[in-house]
Amino acid sequence: MAEPAPSLLPFNNLTISDTVTEADFSQRVLIRSILTRPDSGAGLAGQTVKVGGWVKKGREQGKGSFAFLELNDGSCPANLQLIIYADVAPLGQFTPTGTCLHVEGVLQMPPEDKQGKQSIELKVTKVLDVGAVDPAKYPLPKTRLTLEFLRDYVHLRPRTNTISAIARIRNALAYATHTFFQKHGFLYVHTPIITTSDCEGAGEMFQVTTLINDAEKVEKELIKNPPPSQEDVDLARSVVKEKGEIVAKLKSDKAGKPEITAAVAELTKAKENLSKVEERSKLKPGIPKKDGKVDYGQDFFARQAFLTVSGQLQVETFACALSSVYTFGPTFRAEHSHTSRHLAEFWMVEPEIAFADIEDDMKCAEAYVRFLCQWLLDNCLDDMEFMVEKFDKKAIERLKMVASTNFVRLSYTEAVTILEEAVSKGHKFENKVEWGIDLASEHEKYLTETKFESPVIVYNYPKGIKAFYMKVNPDKKTVAAMDVLVPKVGELIGGSQREENYEVIKERILEMGLPLEPYEWYLDLRRYGTVKHSGFGLGFERMILFATGIDNIRDVIPFPRYPGRADL
Amino acid sequence: MAEPAPSLLPFNNLTISDTVTEADFSQRVLIRSILTRPDSGAGLAGQTVKVGGWVKKGREQGKGSFAFLELNDGSCPANLQLIIYADVAPLGQFTPTGTCLHVEGVLQMPPEDKQGKQSIELKVTKVLDVGAVDPAKYPLPKTRLTLEFLRDYVHLRPRTNTISAIARIRNALAYATHTFFQKHGFLYVHTPIITTSDCEGAGEMFQVTTLINDAEKVEKELIKNPPPSQEDVDLARSVVKEKGEIVAKLKSDKAGKPEITAAVAELTKAKENLSKVEERSKLKPGIPKKDGKVDYGQDFFARQAFLTVSGQLQVETFACALSSVYTFGPTFRAEHSHTSRHLAEFWMVEPEIAFADIEDDMKCAEAYVRFLCQWLLDNCLDDMEFMVEKFDKKAIERLKMVASTNFVRLSYTEAVTILEEAVSKGHKFENKVEWGIDLASEHEKYLTETKFESPVIVYNYPKGIKAFYMKVNPDKKTVAAMDVLVPKVGELIGGSQREENYEVIKERILEMGLPLEPYEWYLDLRRYGTVKHSGFGLGFERMILFATGIDNIRDVIPFPRYPGRADL
Repeated sequence: MAEPAPSLLPFNNLTISDTVTEADFSQRVLIRSILTRPDSGAGLAGQTVKVGGWVKKGREQGKGSFAFLELNDGSCPANLQLIIYADVAPLGQFTPTGTCLHVEGVLQMPPEDKQGKQSIELKVTKVLDVGAVDPAKYPLPKTRLTLEFLRDYVHLRPRTNTISAIARIRNALAYATHTFFQKHGFLYVHTPIITTSDCEGAGEMFQVTTLINDAEKVEKELIKNPPPSQEDVDLARSVVKEKGEIVAKLKSDKAGKPEITAAVAELTKAKENLSKVEERSKLKPGIPKKDGKVDYGQDFFARQAFLTVSGQLQVETFACALSSVYTFGPTFRAEHSHTSRHLAEFWMVEPEIAFADIEDDMKCAEAYVRFLCQWLLDNCLDDMEFMVEKFDKKAIERLKMVASTNFVRLSYTEAVTILEEAVSKGHKFENKVEWGIDLASEHEKYLTETKFESPVIVYNYPKGIKAFYMKVNPDKKTVAAMDVLVPKVGELIGGSQREENYEVIKERILEMGLPLEPYEWYLDLRRYGTVKHSGFGLGFERMILFATGIDNIRDVIPFPRYPGRADL
Repeated sequence: MAEPAPSLLPFNNLTISDTVTEADFSQRVLIRSILTRPDSGAGLAGQTVKVGGWVKKGREQGKGSFAFLELNDGSCPANLQLIIYADVAPLGQFTPTGTCLHVEGVLQMPPEDKQGKQSIELKVTKVLDVGAVDPAKYPLPKTRLTLEFLRDYVHLRPRTNTISAIARIRNALAYATHTFFQKHGFLYVHTPIITTSDCEGAGEMFQVTTLINDAEKVEKELIKNPPPSQEDVDLARSVVKEKGEIVAKLKSDKAGKPEITAAVAELTKAKENLSKVEERSKLKPGIPKKDGKVDYGQDFFARQAFLTVSGQLQVETFACALSSVYTFGPTFRAEHSHTSRHLAEFWMVEPEIAFADIEDDMKCAEAYVRFLCQWLLDNCLDDMEFMVEKFDKKAIERLKMVASTNFVRLSYTEAVTILEEAVSKGHKFENKVEWGIDLASEHEKYLTETKFESPVIVYNYPKGIKAFYMKVNPDKKTVAAMDVLVPKVGELIGGSQREENYEVIKERILEMGLPLEPYEWYLDLRRYGTVKHSGFGLGFERMILFATGIDNIRDVIPFPRYPGRADL
């Protein structure tokens, strides 16, 4: 490998050595490579290192002769303690929370009576750079702020312990996702964000357009430069006629070539002017219409375009050619939901597997979720301990349980029977239980949290409540769909075997009152070399809610988008 | 790890064994795990396996007594040869190109005189499933079709050798990207797709809106159900008045409680009706306007929203808190470019590093590009050999050169001097060369392909041609920007050290005639705990063009979007 040896081994497999290497592309040692060593950095005493980060807490001591600073660089939840003496630099500038410091110093063991909390500290010998903070103006001076308050400061909130821990957990889950699917031979496919397949009804989709901007440009232009009148058009037309007659006359007079050429040039110019004038005379303010409807023929893609609600249908085109694929990207819903569980922009992981039935699909979903949980235990334990301490006592316990438990599997019919039994024994649900209903969140939570205390996969749902593309079972009443339910969030994954029979899926589309034309390409996958295939979708933010125990989905995505709000 | 041991080791580190494991989540052995063994599968002779895939070529032989089928499952470019005898099943259904087959058979060495091409073949013993193709109707029956033709069949083109090879190379580059940055301690951050930061001028941005849909809904509703007239409103108002008087009278008459309650209920109903009628009377067709402009207060996010053109500014908020971060996601330009180098939707990789200057930035860019090239040589050599054979003889050579060469570095001023020297020696450029110009593609190609025959990094560009956020150098004339130029595509990466000084960047914003208000959050990063930082952007599709030698960018993204076109 031509590239220089990495200074940072991934994750927690650092071996103890008595030196620590500088990061390859920045002038410092990452704090994690000091503090997350098995000896918590003690073996590095005596080393001279540069570090950079932001002050979490600072206090002057010894009557102003030195200061202790807790420095965090985001590479791990722990802070490195700095001790800086007044003879190095005036101390007052360093202590405000939020101050950025780039310093050089010597790692040393703290005095024995102070070793409880710190295994190593840095005695600063040189200040390389200071990014000061005026504590009177800094919006986040306090150490504990509510998550709700922080939503008004999405650009600064990554500097808080909670948001940075969530960012590291989110990062770990993303890389774990790629690692899991790559390990199993799946190819990552970038499905489109802008789509013209309006597969779930335009009502909930965002439109992507340049029509409004174009209309505004035209309006501005028409104000600055009013459109030509009919008279102007007639005038331009008469000039063309006149110039044409001159050319005709010169030709019939057998005039000289240069003369004719000059006249033809004038005619051409007049024609060009006419077409410009005619075109401009057609300019109208407002969005272009045709037959009373918006004329999408004039939009950027020459048709109506939307933000995708799922990459599934598109990724199927790759599954039906490359066999094992997945997509991991942003998806969108224009729903006016103000709940703690909905976002207008969120990320989905959607694998799709050829030659796989619903059993394979469930096996894959279970293996994936367990892999994610084990990955966090292996790679993010310090951040998970922070979540346990501050937000959810059961967060680590829950990861361990899911990583080590075979998921309960039961058919929808069995699930309904269990819920009906619960009702008959006096359990109250807000939503009625009977065969044919879509399971409500309270039903899902009852199954996974109360009845089984385990992840549960429910499969074979009634045909009537599921999408057209799901495989119809031999009973003709149910489809080969499955949902993975977990404690804390309920439904984490929804998936199905896809209907691969051309005649059956065509009938299902019509049965649901959908038009065939937009699905012709999807039907082609069944028309030519059709294949049994299955897949599922995992809401990535739901997985983070499940892992961290955080309650509001707006806090587990870097830049939340919801009705009325899209900061930055 | 709770999850079952993977059957497929990642990439090419398979060890030779005399068994082959079925894929975990589908009922077959991936063809790559047979054919990409160091012994090309020979050691597996005698094994019974299931495989699935699509027929690339089929031919009946021996007077129809058996057929040879070339089967491909997308897991590698190579096909597995199947031999199937007529006593297993009628042969005619299997031979059309595009037929999907799921079969069981025994791996065997082909007869000695046929071993040239095939090291192993599968004798089919059982046909599990057939997805038939009518060759008269299949749009892709021929084995070689132009890439241009295939753009009309984005849903079927992954079944071709070229598009599937590109898909595997794209997948490898994506995973290599994550692996590189994770290895170096960078956190993956999902920057927003929908943005309200209009940082490069709305003209080239797609708008994201629900206004047009909402307006269409209102228009439909108004046709079905005409809005109330002023008379209707007056009537509703008089009912309220009347009901109010009744309540007042009952109260002053000290009527019974039930009687008053009933009258109050009627008053409430009348009031509700009035407010509905009033609201409906305000409904107007068309997009809502305020002061002559579109009223974005009524749009989904209560302001104008766009598709992002870059995640850089947003990812800086995480770099200024977590120090080493990157984003990898879709970006958008609403440019009416019909060239082979532009897409309306494309993917960008954008790392951002705190405590890093332009030198660190160049070091990171070089290490990343070389890592990507080496990764393809290590993990995609078979696909790269295909590209060399079919598209670009130099593709592998180019990867090897970049992976093993230290990039040339020269300042913009030096670059211009070199170009001027070339001109004085008679080299012709279409664009004029002089200090201050933005380097054109022909200049970049001259430097990397002709002058140095090596990747080149040009740094310290004139301030006037670069963005406001780039760090002004001490000479006050140049900024600490850098571009990485490579043979074949020219500019592959653009980056810079960012201006971290609050006063300087504020002045730069004003100097460029931009308003301050939308950048207040960006200024906050400099106002509070500012940090030296640097980053760059790599156009992911450009990297694939560079690697594969493919000429048109529409062929290296699964679902290309460009003016007039957004299929699926």
